[in-house]
Amino acid sequence: MVSQGTGRQPKYQRIANELKAAIAAGRYGPGDRLPGENDLMAAHAVARMTARQALGVLQSEGLVEARKGAGVFVRDFRPIRRRGVERLSVREWGEGRSVWEADIEGRELAVELVSVTEEPAPEAIARVLGLAEGAPTCVRRRRFVLDGRPVLLAASYLDAVLVAGTAITLPDTGPGGIYARLDEIGRKPIRFREEIRSRMPTSEEAEQLKLAPGTPVLRISRTAYTDDDQAVEVNDMVLDASAYVLEYAFNASASQHP
Amino acid sequence: MVSQGTGRQPKYQRIANELKAAIAAGRYGPGDRLPGENDLMAAHAVARMTARQALGVLQSEGLVEARKGAGVFVRDFRPIRRRGVERLSVREWGEGRSVWEADIEGRELAVELVSVTEEPAPEAIARVLGLAEGAPTCVRRRRFVLDGRPVLLAASYLDAVLVAGTAITLPDTGPGGIYARLDEIGRKPIRFREEIRSRMPTSEEAEQLKLAPGTPVLRISRTAYTDDDQAVEVNDMVLDASAYVLEYAFNASASQHP
Repeated sequence: MVSQGTGRQPKYQRIANELKAAIAAGRYGPGDRLPGENDLMAAHAVARMTARQALGVLQSEGLVEARKGAGVFVRDFRPIRRRGVERLSVREWGEGRSVWEADIEGRELAVELVSVTEEPAPEAIARVLGLAEGAPTCVRRRRFVLDGRPVLLAASYLDAVLVAGTAITLPDTGPGGIYARLDEIGRKPIRFREEIRSRMPTSEEAEQLKLAPGTPVLRISRTAYTDDDQAVEVNDMVLDASAYVLEYAFNASASQHP
Repeated sequence: MVSQGTGRQPKYQRIANELKAAIAAGRYGPGDRLPGENDLMAAHAVARMTARQALGVLQSEGLVEARKGAGVFVRDFRPIRRRGVERLSVREWGEGRSVWEADIEGRELAVELVSVTEEPAPEAIARVLGLAEGAPTCVRRRRFVLDGRPVLLAASYLDAVLVAGTAITLPDTGPGGIYARLDEIGRKPIRFREEIRSRMPTSEEAEQLKLAPGTPVLRISRTAYTDDDQAVEVNDMVLDASAYVLEYAFNASASQHP
């Protein structure tokens, strides 16, 4: 490979760009080992630090991951497609073509219940649920595990007074889950609002999700509303951003700004 | 401040946690300067490296930003709320309460046209638009600027053959923009699909969006469909993740898994 580029870019950046182009062109596929520091030093006549920086660029962009003692490998990015509006996207839309391929074909996404506890409401949750700060909430923590790897942490908060005596406070919520139980007490959720942000993980999140360095988390805060516009549940989720594509499908509306 | 914690956590992590708690409690508000390395060294009787690591944790989580020669400051996080489904969320829902406060009150979000070009379709775009790879596309690049700071880069791709001779190929697309022009040629978009991912920025993106270190980007790929399910536009967006909360509101559907 011969270096191209403007000459103004630092050498490590030019090498990184070449490697990226090679990955994009499929010369290195998911799981393939990239040339190591020694290979890059020889091919580009650069110092070890330059070769290391070049590989560091790809790592920090989440394209590759270093495995101790084995080298740097192209990430096997086959993210999970999470549909926010299932009915629209599947029933009305069909599967269709999409920009990012994603599937969990042949892989198992398992849900594990971590805990059911009663905890004082954090300020933001209390505000949304219309409770006093510190009021008791029933908190159901779950973990989604794909191929043995945790990819999503979820914590659902509900008014502990409202759900007292229902199966929502038990490990097994019964058929239909918490929404069926809410329906039984006249609090059926009929609308949802999802808010999405992204940031770097806290050290706890990085550990719990076993995140590779340079991997951000997606945060989804999902609120369920009854038909009289009362929020009955807030589900606070933290997702491994390298493991997910979020999808929302909707009809044309007044707003078409990006 | 006296250190608390399990004793098992490294010192820098305990100091970082205390600073985070102080920010969460409002003792340090947006724009406030945090204690510097010297302050932390004195208050906690630790080495400079430990103080630096503690501040580094907050920086890498995007809670604070270092300003050269001035210190470390709490980020002024008042993100922009981007509503995916405006009609539902505003007309039917009202403003409501939400977990993350966000607004652009008193701040101006300006849209700048960067370029209108004809470019060969990238593979993923070609697949979605039903074009051959490398087929000519009309590409409209725009930049959204908030208070002088670019926060979103958008590139809309349309079939160049389809839009030839329309104002879509001109800098000024006229009243109603490109969707009105598509309507005039019988290709009105009536449905949208948005796909969201997050990753660390490329060096080009970090430069164009002036991103602070430790700030990921959100990527939104938005496809516009006609009523016969043909994709007529793909809008590829890159957002400063620290500047945005994305919101989607929808009615209950078959799927209620998180």
